[in-house]
Amino acid sequence: MTNDTLLRALAREATDYTPIWLMRQAGRYLPEYNATRARAGSFLALAKSPALATEVTLQPLERFPLDAAILFSDILTVPDAMGLGLYFAEGEGPRFERPLRDEAAIRALAVPDPAVQLRYVIDAVRQIRQALAGRVPLIGFSGSPFTLACYMVEGSGSDDWRALKTMLYARPDLLHRILEVNARAVTDYLNAQIEAGAQAVMIFDTWGGQLSHAGYETFSLAYSRRVLAGLKQQEGRRVPSILFTKGGGAWLEAMAASGCDAIGLDWTTDPAAARKSVGARVALQGNLDPSALFAPAERVRAEARRVLDAFGAAPGHVFNLGHGIAPQTPVDSVAALVDEVRTYSRKMRAPAQTKA
Amino acid sequence: MTNDTLLRALAREATDYTPIWLMRQAGRYLPEYNATRARAGSFLALAKSPALATEVTLQPLERFPLDAAILFSDILTVPDAMGLGLYFAEGEGPRFERPLRDEAAIRALAVPDPAVQLRYVIDAVRQIRQALAGRVPLIGFSGSPFTLACYMVEGSGSDDWRALKTMLYARPDLLHRILEVNARAVTDYLNAQIEAGAQAVMIFDTWGGQLSHAGYETFSLAYSRRVLAGLKQQEGRRVPSILFTKGGGAWLEAMAASGCDAIGLDWTTDPAAARKSVGARVALQGNLDPSALFAPAERVRAEARRVLDAFGAAPGHVFNLGHGIAPQTPVDSVAALVDEVRTYSRKMRAPAQTKA
Repeated sequence: MTNDTLLRALAREATDYTPIWLMRQAGRYLPEYNATRARAGSFLALAKSPALATEVTLQPLERFPLDAAILFSDILTVPDAMGLGLYFAEGEGPRFERPLRDEAAIRALAVPDPAVQLRYVIDAVRQIRQALAGRVPLIGFSGSPFTLACYMVEGSGSDDWRALKTMLYARPDLLHRILEVNARAVTDYLNAQIEAGAQAVMIFDTWGGQLSHAGYETFSLAYSRRVLAGLKQQEGRRVPSILFTKGGGAWLEAMAASGCDAIGLDWTTDPAAARKSVGARVALQGNLDPSALFAPAERVRAEARRVLDAFGAAPGHVFNLGHGIAPQTPVDSVAALVDEVRTYSRKMRAPAQTKA
Repeated sequence: MTNDTLLRALAREATDYTPIWLMRQAGRYLPEYNATRARAGSFLALAKSPALATEVTLQPLERFPLDAAILFSDILTVPDAMGLGLYFAEGEGPRFERPLRDEAAIRALAVPDPAVQLRYVIDAVRQIRQALAGRVPLIGFSGSPFTLACYMVEGSGSDDWRALKTMLYARPDLLHRILEVNARAVTDYLNAQIEAGAQAVMIFDTWGGQLSHAGYETFSLAYSRRVLAGLKQQEGRRVPSILFTKGGGAWLEAMAASGCDAIGLDWTTDPAAARKSVGARVALQGNLDPSALFAPAERVRAEARRVLDAFGAAPGHVFNLGHGIAPQTPVDSVAALVDEVRTYSRKMRAPAQTKA
């Protein structure tokens, strides 16, 4: 591989600089992404075409010297493959035609075969890996069992997840049944991505932070742990895993003991406190506030340095945002960010050379 | 006062049981509230009528043996009094006709006189206090300087607070100017409530949890601290203050040193970890997940016991939800909750009697 800085940082090995990639880096802030999406006709058509998914996955790498590619796909491919009927209403978030509201539907829920119902994703992974030609590693991903369940029960995004929470408190047995199926489905899905060429995987637990302290362990982390325990290694080489819970700052110690190699930090978490809490067990990824990219370039650079300083020069930091990049983000801000992280972190990690 | 359990718990004195009140306890889950609101014609007409505000403030106390009344008012009365033009579009959250987007408007921002522009609130406090006739204490409240600024800059609620965050990163000087005015305005507003009869006050920092770790201290806590330092004591008696930051679980230690008497905990925070982090400096209020009230009564009671056990029997716990009560909450769930908290906490706090 030409650039394996990300994989070394995830293994907490020394690197010349801090690797950087951005959650949702192939996305609507890029004019070329919007052009491809327009050609595809819809977001789902784009996500379901391996050729177009490959095209947009590579777009940010043409613009910026990023240290990883991440599979372009939707977070809800798995429940869609389970038959819930994913669709996007114009200008709105994802929705399911058949949300899980009755016991019979929940009992009937089955683990999809990634080689069949999710073949378009696995084909995309294979094609992206080939197109990358070893330039940078490819990260595969899935929603966490809990985050998938949120949408599956609610039928859409929500401010308060009332249907989900009602099931959680009134019929926890039904939610556990969904989560068990999801954990097996996510394990199979990520393993299929690894077999097709993903060199690292990330679990997005976008809504775990909506749970109570006790609920997070019971309904989210317990099932992510099962997934992590079931991940395959490829040809003897460890495929590192990154676990990200938005709003999970209070649970880092438990997350670090979950079997993951790295923890994604949202922008509210103090990197120094996070490192203290997890010790040397895992790498840390994050955590610039995505809104900082709305500032002028010089301020973006200053914020990047602040985040790098907060993580320090010890091995095991992967620079990222604390959440996905916003569609309205100026492209120039991203260029300034990537440049500053590269330049400044190189100086941080080679103090002797800087002084010479 | 007939029942001063809340004030004693806020002072971390021993009490016979754990006092309970609920954020937004005078609200849409109550049929009698909806009837009064319908009579008023609109939410704002209700909030701006001292007589009707008094009526709805007392309604939950007629149904449930709660240990406090909280002033019925809107969180955005202060910016409305500054001339921003608060209104509610049908079925939507609050909006401002004139959000703060240009420097001239921000420079012109002035602290309102509570006795003039906010007289309807101060009159309501006086009337409620009289109507309560010493039954339970009356809590006054305000939005935090930062949370008010969020709405003032954005012009409405938001998922990402993009206008606010853009100002924060690109023109922090302008945001600091707004926050300085807000801190003085909130101080005057809460002092006017105290003079009119509020026996405790609460600062709602609903959106502080959207800030980065560094940003929370700079843009939210620093200004809440100024408010807390400026609060009057009434006739030599301490008027306790409660500071609540939704999503502020990582910052409890700093909050405990802010000058407040108690910290409100959202439902994601572990009460035992919170107590460890703040020591004996402050009382703690919270933190049942409001969604737990969608469960059957027996499960509501079990969750109430779980929260009480997590806080323990040491003095200084005020039972509450981790966020405002949802409009769809069944009234019977609230009755079960209040009864269980009273009964179970009485047993917890008098183990000798229980055994006898």
